[in-house]
Amino acid sequence: MAQKSFDRAALEQLIVKRFFYAPSFQIYGGVAGFYDFGPTGCALMNNIISVWRNHFVLEEEMLELDTTIMTTHEVLKTSGHVDKFADWMCKDLKNGEIFRADHVVEAVLEARLQGDMQARAAKNGTEAEVVVEKKDPKKKKKKGVVVAVELVDAVRKEYEETLAQIDNYGGQELADIMKKFDIRSPETGNELSVPQEFNLMFDSSIGPTGQLKGYLRPETAQGQFLNFKRLLEFNNDKMPFASAQVGRSFRNEISPRSGLLRVREFTMAEIEHFVDPENKDHPHFADVKDVTITLLSKDVQLSGKTETREVTVGDAVEKIGIKRERLRFRQHMDNEMAHYATDCWDAEIHTSYGWIECVGCADRSAYDLTVHSRRTKEKLVVREQLETPRVIEQWQVEINKKTFGPKYKKNAKIVEEALMSYTDQCYEKLQKDLETNGTSSVDVDGVTFDVSKEDVSVARGTVTEHIREYTPNVIEPSFGIGRILYSLLEHSWWVREGDESRNVLSFPTVVAPFKCCLLPLSGNVCFDPFVKKYSRQLRQNGISTRTDDSKTSIGRRYARNDELGIPFAITVDFQTVEDNTVTLRQRDSTEQIRDSFENILKILKESSADY
Amino acid sequence: MAQKSFDRAALEQLIVKRFFYAPSFQIYGGVAGFYDFGPTGCALMNNIISVWRNHFVLEEEMLELDTTIMTTHEVLKTSGHVDKFADWMCKDLKNGEIFRADHVVEAVLEARLQGDMQARAAKNGTEAEVVVEKKDPKKKKKKGVVVAVELVDAVRKEYEETLAQIDNYGGQELADIMKKFDIRSPETGNELSVPQEFNLMFDSSIGPTGQLKGYLRPETAQGQFLNFKRLLEFNNDKMPFASAQVGRSFRNEISPRSGLLRVREFTMAEIEHFVDPENKDHPHFADVKDVTITLLSKDVQLSGKTETREVTVGDAVEKIGIKRERLRFRQHMDNEMAHYATDCWDAEIHTSYGWIECVGCADRSAYDLTVHSRRTKEKLVVREQLETPRVIEQWQVEINKKTFGPKYKKNAKIVEEALMSYTDQCYEKLQKDLETNGTSSVDVDGVTFDVSKEDVSVARGTVTEHIREYTPNVIEPSFGIGRILYSLLEHSWWVREGDESRNVLSFPTVVAPFKCCLLPLSGNVCFDPFVKKYSRQLRQNGISTRTDDSKTSIGRRYARNDELGIPFAITVDFQTVEDNTVTLRQRDSTEQIRDSFENILKILKESSADY
Repeated sequence: MAQKSFDRAALEQLIVKRFFYAPSFQIYGGVAGFYDFGPTGCALMNNIISVWRNHFVLEEEMLELDTTIMTTHEVLKTSGHVDKFADWMCKDLKNGEIFRADHVVEAVLEARLQGDMQARAAKNGTEAEVVVEKKDPKKKKKKGVVVAVELVDAVRKEYEETLAQIDNYGGQELADIMKKFDIRSPETGNELSVPQEFNLMFDSSIGPTGQLKGYLRPETAQGQFLNFKRLLEFNNDKMPFASAQVGRSFRNEISPRSGLLRVREFTMAEIEHFVDPENKDHPHFADVKDVTITLLSKDVQLSGKTETREVTVGDAVEKIGIKRERLRFRQHMDNEMAHYATDCWDAEIHTSYGWIECVGCADRSAYDLTVHSRRTKEKLVVREQLETPRVIEQWQVEINKKTFGPKYKKNAKIVEEALMSYTDQCYEKLQKDLETNGTSSVDVDGVTFDVSKEDVSVARGTVTEHIREYTPNVIEPSFGIGRILYSLLEHSWWVREGDESRNVLSFPTVVAPFKCCLLPLSGNVCFDPFVKKYSRQLRQNGISTRTDDSKTSIGRRYARNDELGIPFAITVDFQTVEDNTVTLRQRDSTEQIRDSFENILKILKESSADY
Repeated sequence: MAQKSFDRAALEQLIVKRFFYAPSFQIYGGVAGFYDFGPTGCALMNNIISVWRNHFVLEEEMLELDTTIMTTHEVLKTSGHVDKFADWMCKDLKNGEIFRADHVVEAVLEARLQGDMQARAAKNGTEAEVVVEKKDPKKKKKKGVVVAVELVDAVRKEYEETLAQIDNYGGQELADIMKKFDIRSPETGNELSVPQEFNLMFDSSIGPTGQLKGYLRPETAQGQFLNFKRLLEFNNDKMPFASAQVGRSFRNEISPRSGLLRVREFTMAEIEHFVDPENKDHPHFADVKDVTITLLSKDVQLSGKTETREVTVGDAVEKIGIKRERLRFRQHMDNEMAHYATDCWDAEIHTSYGWIECVGCADRSAYDLTVHSRRTKEKLVVREQLETPRVIEQWQVEINKKTFGPKYKKNAKIVEEALMSYTDQCYEKLQKDLETNGTSSVDVDGVTFDVSKEDVSVARGTVTEHIREYTPNVIEPSFGIGRILYSLLEHSWWVREGDESRNVLSFPTVVAPFKCCLLPLSGNVCFDPFVKKYSRQLRQNGISTRTDDSKTSIGRRYARNDELGIPFAITVDFQTVEDNTVTLRQRDSTEQIRDSFENILKILKESSADY
């Protein structure tokens, strides 16, 4: 899937040179999966978040939260993350190196397929330089060297089908595949251990005793669920509504890779739509129903393919500079989904790494609210006043308080609770038993209690409900801000040909780290008061400005600012000193116009009116 | 220091009711020191950060960063935090309860002083209700009961002096005080253990092997120091400059208390001014030199007092709604300072908890850059081209390469390094030795090497320096956003008298969580299109709006929105349907005017022009 002609190394060099981001703790050698954002990257990220907030939170009056990163063990045990938020890892049995099991399978099979392609090309004489080796692909080989071994068609097909479903395999399946295809360490050729689960949460302990275990949140969602009652109250008990949160989350990845795409600490923006399970429609659906999006369903993927179909959202993504044709929605396969989801569609953006998940849209049903409610005994429900009361026929149980208490003593409460939570079938049996024998039995956690018709009566009857009580379902769009930022860098980058090739980052003005750069022609002191005055006026008009008064030629400074993705440059020269006119240069076209500073300011204000 | 008449419980109730913030994981019972911010608190925090960013980062073109929270052991070991970022704790020797040593001393002495006051008042007949007990204050007593025991004047004075310096004591001093004044657990009266150090960083481990130790950062500053080289380069090698960062930090407090004032996870905004140690002036000092601020120096505090003096900054704080007269700058006492600081002044805001530190302004000198540079061998310096070269007289050493290498073999390099890094005194001795005896000795890590005048010559000479190389000093203003937010709540809150007392939060428009609320008079559907239209127009004009169409009387809704601190309310009524006019109500004065929606929109835009 990767674009072969894309020069990722050149872009990565630009990213570090202009300090969009760079590895954290680099003077200490760095640690995989951690990046620091510099002035440009930080501004770009803030601008993306600002567009996101305007588009979602403000536009839809969502309830934004800011909850803690540190989360107690009990919360994440209940949510299922302690038990299920894990990846499969395996160890090189000789040198102890650790791999993520699916990644190592993927890397080995992809290398073998690539070798096959080269071997075939060489055979056809289309690629003369590759050395075709007919040796065993399983044999130990040097790192990075693709051994060009031709595969039989059936094997090639099997590899391709395995790769298409790689995200869908659990531990046992990965173990089977590794055995079947004899997957070994790509570095050493050593055998690998059977895949073992590794929990992805960073753990710590809270307080001086060290007794209270905590984790760094793996998602911002749990903080939103725990505050459900307060949010509903804040929303004057009205449904549906959405909460939102932007913040840092953590995943202790086994083998971070691909730059910002798989990191251990990242910024995410999550929305939880709390909806009525009987009516999951979004009130604004009508406004977007005709927007074309590209879908890739699970059925197509399970058939080993990746064909998409066009159906009838793209406004926000185009605004931040992601190309429309490089966005699609892919449905998760069943085993791929997180433990809390009943359905999940990823918005994927195409980059040089292939299609990458940037927004996960999951239907979490009532899962989270139900598990937290059950564990804490706190009711996390919506009570809806029914306009016309509902008459419902149902089983009704009556307890004879006079005999019940004395008979069951300290067990009275649990027996009553068990009777009250029967299924329809159980009630039917209970009624039959009591009618026929006068007695029946109740099972409570393996202990059996006898009940007689003196203690309890049961019958079908009608009740009139004035209130409907339900646990809301949750639809969650979860945005990976770092991944969106990286995709934006790829989609915005191009090289301007000329005397020398020069990098340009064509960010839309709304997300550009700085909107304008201000350049005195030279170090001559006569320009200083103008630079100072214009800089103040630009800022006062909300146009973020970078002054570049370094002693470099104006051409080089233009080039530098193109690399920073600044859409406009204002140059102060000798004519400015005489008549207060400046030149305005546009980044993408390099066109320049000359006008009074006041008029130029007006143009800039208009071009950046929508942020 | 606490304001006695301030009804903090009422404010706290309002804070939770209107979901500014509330304890995290509350449905699980909560954990001390963790708070979740609701829609109002989150918006308020974002607005404070936005004012901060405009005032500092944009206005001064600071280089904003966003570095990781997870930080490796090696970084924080080098910075001194692993060894020195600790508080003193002591244990109840019977029940194991843990206290922060200085807090328990403070609590016990304050209770005794309060008891003394009551006893004196009772003796004078001014406070009849207190039961004066002449019993031993050390004796076990019930929780919360102040025992009114009169103290002799000398003891009272000693207690007061101890309290004034409480932040200045180390472990031994606290142990001495606890022994001298027989400080016991205020809850149980049990003896307490000798104070022990407790490191305040949350620890974790990175990666699947569990071998790489990490901590959650206790400050954002280290991430800024580690990026110094990139920042200097980004700034085209120009000095001075400032970097800035807003983000979450963590401190595993022994005993969190006082709401947002002492928490385990918090948002801070830090600025690092990298300055020339020979000229620490700020280029914009002239602009603020006449602004009056209130100072409390360490000399005054060490004398056991708290008298402040007025000297000739208050712009930013007044903008966000902190009262000028409740802000002062207090100098740290020597032992109170963090291990990296050579001087520190806290901007303190007065609240019902007394004066609380909201901004710490520390002179970190060259401490951090020096320790990181020494550990990583990475040069973290500024090289300045001197306009006029400097001629410096200094000791000059010359090594005779011909004899040196063969003589010292593998030790040649370390002997040469030792000779090159001599102090002036050592050079003087070396010269004398070589002149007198023809030989001298060099000590390298305890091993002595002989050197002769054949190997090395040393003499005073002059060198001409064209480049000056120096390690910048760092001046750091560090803002505790949560504390500022809490102070703002206290300073903004008042109670409107009327039929019933009603809470009002008079936030300045620039920081108010919502700028406007939009209220249809009733649930009549004829208002719906107007509400929808106006809501869109308000948002498009950047005026964040909360629509309140709940079925409550308009008066109650006004009251609710006063509690949310929304400065303006627009009401849509039957006249609106006829002529497009609305009423605008101002929160603080409750004054209302009626005008066309367009004119009202203009008024709102003007009132909130500065954000």
